[in-house]
Amino acid sequence: MSDPIVVINPNSTEAVTEAMSDALEGLRLPGGPDIECLTNPDGPPGVESQADADLAAVQVREIVARRANSASAFVIACYSDPGIHAAREAAGKPVFGIAESGMLRAMSVAGNFGVIAILEKSIPRHMRYIRTLGFESRLAGERALGLGVVELSDETRAYARLVEKGNELRELDGAQVVVLGCAGMARYRAALEEEIGIPVIDPTQAAVSNALTNALLKSP
Amino acid sequence: MSDPIVVINPNSTEAVTEAMSDALEGLRLPGGPDIECLTNPDGPPGVESQADADLAAVQVREIVARRANSASAFVIACYSDPGIHAAREAAGKPVFGIAESGMLRAMSVAGNFGVIAILEKSIPRHMRYIRTLGFESRLAGERALGLGVVELSDETRAYARLVEKGNELRELDGAQVVVLGCAGMARYRAALEEEIGIPVIDPTQAAVSNALTNALLKSP
Amino acid sequence: MSDPIVVINPNSTEAVTEAMSDALEGLRLPGGPDIECLTNPDGPPGVESQADADLAAVQVREIVARRANSASAFVIACYSDPGIHAAREAAGKPVFGIAESGMLRAMSVAGNFGVIAILEKSIPRHMRYIRTLGFESRLAGERALGLGVVELSDETRAYARLVEKGNELRELDGAQVVVLGCAGMARYRAALEEEIGIPVIDPTQAAVSNALTNALLKSP
Amino acid sequence: MSDPIVVINPNSTEAVTEAMSDALEGLRLPGGPDIECLTNPDGPPGVESQADADLAAVQVREIVARRANSASAFVIACYSDPGIHAAREAAGKPVFGIAESGMLRAMSVAGNFGVIAILEKSIPRHMRYIRTLGFESRLAGERALGLGVVELSDETRAYARLVEKGNELRELDGAQVVVLGCAGMARYRAALEEEIGIPVIDPTQAAVSNALTNALLKSP
Amino acid sequence: MSDPIVVINPNSTEAVTEAMSDALEGLRLPGGPDIECLTNPDGPPGVESQADADLAAVQVREIVARRANSASAFVIACYSDPGIHAAREAAGKPVFGIAESGMLRAMSVAGNFGVIAILEKSIPRHMRYIRTLGFESRLAGERALGLGVVELSDETRAYARLVEKGNELRELDGAQVVVLGCAGMARYRAALEEEIGIPVIDPTQAAVSNALTNALLKSP
Amino acid sequence: MSDPIVVINPNSTEAVTEAMSDALEGLRLPGGPDIECLTNPDGPPGVESQADADLAAVQVREIVARRANSASAFVIACYSDPGIHAAREAAGKPVFGIAESGMLRAMSVAGNFGVIAILEKSIPRHMRYIRTLGFESRLAGERALGLGVVELSDETRAYARLVEKGNELRELDGAQVVVLGCAGMARYRAALEEEIGIPVIDPTQAAVSNALTNALLKSP
Repeated sequence: MSDPIVVINPNSTEAVTEAMSDALEGLRLPGGPDIECLTNPDGPPGVESQADADLAAVQVREIVARRANSASAFVIACYSDPGIHAAREAAGKPVFGIAESGMLRAMSVAGNFGVIAILEKSIPRHMRYIRTLGFESRLAGERALGLGVVELSDETRAYARLVEKGNELRELDGAQVVVLGCAGMARYRAALEEEIGIPVIDPTQAAVSNALTNALLKSP
Repeated sequence: MSDPIVVINPNSTEAVTEAMSDALEGLRLPGGPDIECLTNPDGPPGVESQADADLAAVQVREIVARRANSASAFVIACYSDPGIHAAREAAGKPVFGIAESGMLRAMSVAGNFGVIAILEKSIPRHMRYIRTLGFESRLAGERALGLGVVELSDETRAYARLVEKGNELRELDGAQVVVLGCAGMARYRAALEEEIGIPVIDPTQAAVSNALTNALLKSP
Repeated sequence: MSDPIVVINPNSTEAVTEAMSDALEGLRLPGGPDIECLTNPDGPPGVESQADADLAAVQVREIVARRANSASAFVIACYSDPGIHAAREAAGKPVFGIAESGMLRAMSVAGNFGVIAILEKSIPRHMRYIRTLGFESRLAGERALGLGVVELSDETRAYARLVEKGNELRELDGAQVVVLGCAGMARYRAALEEEIGIPVIDPTQAAVSNALTNALLKSP
Repeated sequence: MSDPIVVINPNSTEAVTEAMSDALEGLRLPGGPDIECLTNPDGPPGVESQADADLAAVQVREIVARRANSASAFVIACYSDPGIHAAREAAGKPVFGIAESGMLRAMSVAGNFGVIAILEKSIPRHMRYIRTLGFESRLAGERALGLGVVELSDETRAYARLVEKGNELRELDGAQVVVLGCAGMARYRAALEEEIGIPVIDPTQAAVSNALTNALLKSP
Repeated sequence: MSDPIVVINPNSTEAVTEAMSDALEGLRLPGGPDIECLTNPDGPPGVESQADADLAAVQVREIVARRANSASAFVIACYSDPGIHAAREAAGKPVFGIAESGMLRAMSVAGNFGVIAILEKSIPRHMRYIRTLGFESRLAGERALGLGVVELSDETRAYARLVEKGNELRELDGAQVVVLGCAGMARYRAALEEEIGIPVIDPTQAAVSNALTNALLKSP
Repeated sequence: MSDPIVVINPNSTEAVTEAMSDALEGLRLPGGPDIECLTNPDGPPGVESQADADLAAVQVREIVARRANSASAFVIACYSDPGIHAAREAAGKPVFGIAESGMLRAMSVAGNFGVIAILEKSIPRHMRYIRTLGFESRLAGERALGLGVVELSDETRAYARLVEKGNELRELDGAQVVVLGCAGMARYRAALEEEIGIPVIDPTQAAVSNALTNALLKSP
């Protein structure tokens, strides 16, 4: 039997791990690889600063190193892709970051994309990463909810803000598709897509899709 | 039962369609969507010029329009992605191009990528497309086999050239991953990857993976 | 006697062909090459979608191939430059696209340029082309009239919109020059330039200028 | 009668002015504007350093200011376009620079271009200008003759080097067209094009073409 | 004793030279190199046009050539860096331009920067220079005071505008740091920084800092 | 008395700290701020992988947080700038990274720069960072010594390689200035500059220069 795809939630909030696991249900195939979602027990409650991301990077790498022989691929389920390059050094297996995979998926369906971040201060960090990846010519805009990772579970408030920011991305920035800029937004994807009328991408789904088809094809 | 993923080979060479269909075997899942590979009967034997690509574009769009109500998604299986934008207008369903999907997949596994084209004259056409997509900062290089689409089925000759060009991309251009720049190279992917020691991406597999997981998740 | 410059209107609207021919009067020189304007009889009434552009591409190439021995140069007079690369393969003669030539001309007179499109949905197609050409750093903005090619002949309405969009490009986007993003706007160039106070470029004039001086100099 | 197009040779070498004037013969039309070529009597013998270019800039602007009322357009015939922006401030008439026009013309006929400079030390100056113009994505390469402006009139030696560098641009850099990177190379254009088998652009011809058609059309 | 750092004010306004000299007081170290501020007596009262900048370029180079043997380094204290490349040819010593040094310093402290220009018409000139330097991806925005160099000494009016534009850069353009786009704004730096709450860079201080530490280290 | 500039060597090799401290002697001014060089006792012997860099990032941030009240500025003396953004969050003081400062300094003296890395595998990490910073248009090339941080203290071998790579950057890549891509190369700067005939930048000197003049001016 093949090894599972290991999806690492770099933060310590179990509710986030559970919601992302639920969102991956469609990718758990009869006879296909298991998709195992782990919480990083020592992580911050949410990755909200560069210090959080840097600490998570080291912890993610350790988890990956520990599981290198019992995983077919890894997914780093935080929109800063903490530790992605060190994890690749350690894994000897494919490692997918959700920010990277989410933006790549967005570019496979539309000419440009918008991003919804949790906090205003996340945006400069994301901008640096977009430049690192060379994708800035495809970015329509990024807008922040002004809510932390934990506050995302306040459904009424979080959803209202998502709709507001999604509409702004579509109308003011001309975004043709929206990428959710935090793994903790997974539960809202389908409703939001319906509401704002353009595709909405859950980046964890995008990354796990990459890992799944990699496993099915035994190829990149 | 859900509609099939329709993979359109824009050229008229059945052998190409068959080889790509074989390469997609791992993505045909129990209970998953059918993956139906069509040959474009009126297409050129291979898309080797801009005139070929432009003609194929119109034909691909017609096929897509005809199948819009009996497909869950479309894949355009020619490395020029002929007709991709018109097909999107016509389909009301996701349409994935293999060049686009192949390069996106490459960027999910490595910092840069090389491309193997069939003919020297394909390269300017591909360069224009890479600029259109905004991916030039991630391109390590592109090199041509000097073989037409039909000649690709001469296995000894084609494989020797693929190895030569793959090694040049890795050694001289510093490519970390190679994208096969023609749907007709699918049969050589696994052996070539083994031989040159870096991942080799069959772009048709990449595009169909996108369509498959889109269908599984009912989301982009 | 030298062969004519053949200007191809890829759409089937004779009024557009006639207006562009009128706008070229100043380039018909005593002893100079004839400037012959053709309508594509099988074309769409206006190129308003990617499907229109792709179909026109094939037709333009056929016209070019047919006239290859009785033309000194070709101009493709539609702001999507449909078929430009295949026409170059077929012609063995210079082939100028009006979008390309219009933007190049704009950059010879000012630091940036704005574009007036006919329809909102034309803009993503134009944006792709601007990226293909590598000119995005010089683009101030693009704005759409919200009028189809045929509606352009409603002079009162079309001109009012042109003035509105031209002023927006100058004031809101800081454009220093405006390129008319459709061959069917030729008749309004001079008045619009006078009205908005910055140069307005008819891209068909720009492309035919290139063809004319090429013929005069027997050089690129 | 309309005012002449005034072509300013920013250097003091009459032979350069005469050769460029000869190369413009095809643009002197019956009934068309005069094309008057001026030598800058106080200029350096050739613009070979930034100091030369800066001094020429001031002198060119003075000539333009003096002739503002007796010219229909100006061409600055030195491949550094010295003084182009100040000349535009002073002229109230179109001012075309030959480097700018030469590269724009090149991009109207091919996907990329190479440049032949006179001296190795000219290349960093040209590179800065190409970045200023935003054209670096279209540059295939630039190579220097290693000959000063005055040495260009030694025909045997100059032509042999031009052929050598033109061939290197085509073969090693993949250039599809060559731009002569000095007004003093005009006399060699036609032969060089014949010899190296790809189009060769005399940038003075390109700039004067722009001025001429501007005058014919009374539009940009 | 070591030669002084020579700071050249390319305009003829003594008050500007004096204010910049005052702002450099902290860099005059016991035992360190002298910092000598010169006025260009033949310069324009302020560099407000391209013609001003081009004339100043020639004059700056002459001053540099004259002082090449009695200076350890040069600073060109005008935000157009007039003559910087010719000065480098002439000096055989380091030559720092304040625009270049100011933007480089800004990028050492923040992810992006805004610029305050004196006049609206300065902005296109600055934009060309930013493209020349390749820094456009780090520019948040540029806004003009609408005041000439001489008007900058009207303290009440100038300061009010600086605060207005600084706040606009921070709030509307998202600038994380502001570069003063004219040497004549030096006197307002500290108060403006306090007022708008983000760092404000006097580019003359930045350039002289570079020259000073170069002298201290005898290295670039 | 003012607080010292704290220079953090993120690796645990004391010899590197000592050599960099020696190279900073010229910046220790009478009456100026102390320059205190710290070794990170828990760091790797050299930062040679992404895992090393990620671990160092967390440790650097902790050191910065601990010293936030007893430092006037911080310098992170490793060419990966580990932890720079988290350190800025924690410090409330200027934080300079040596890679960033070294490249910025290089761009203040020349049109392009080359980099000498320690190991081939450092180059992709540096390339990502150069894209993050937006400086790729100014990079002439990067070449690796093939020596680890600790091997850098083998003077004969290290110096011979530095000369070899420096010459290759100048001759093959056209670099106008060289940046040392590791804090551990400081001791070789002066001799290498003399040997290869173009400026060589010690990035630690560049970063500490920024911190020093910041302290002297009490401004950025």
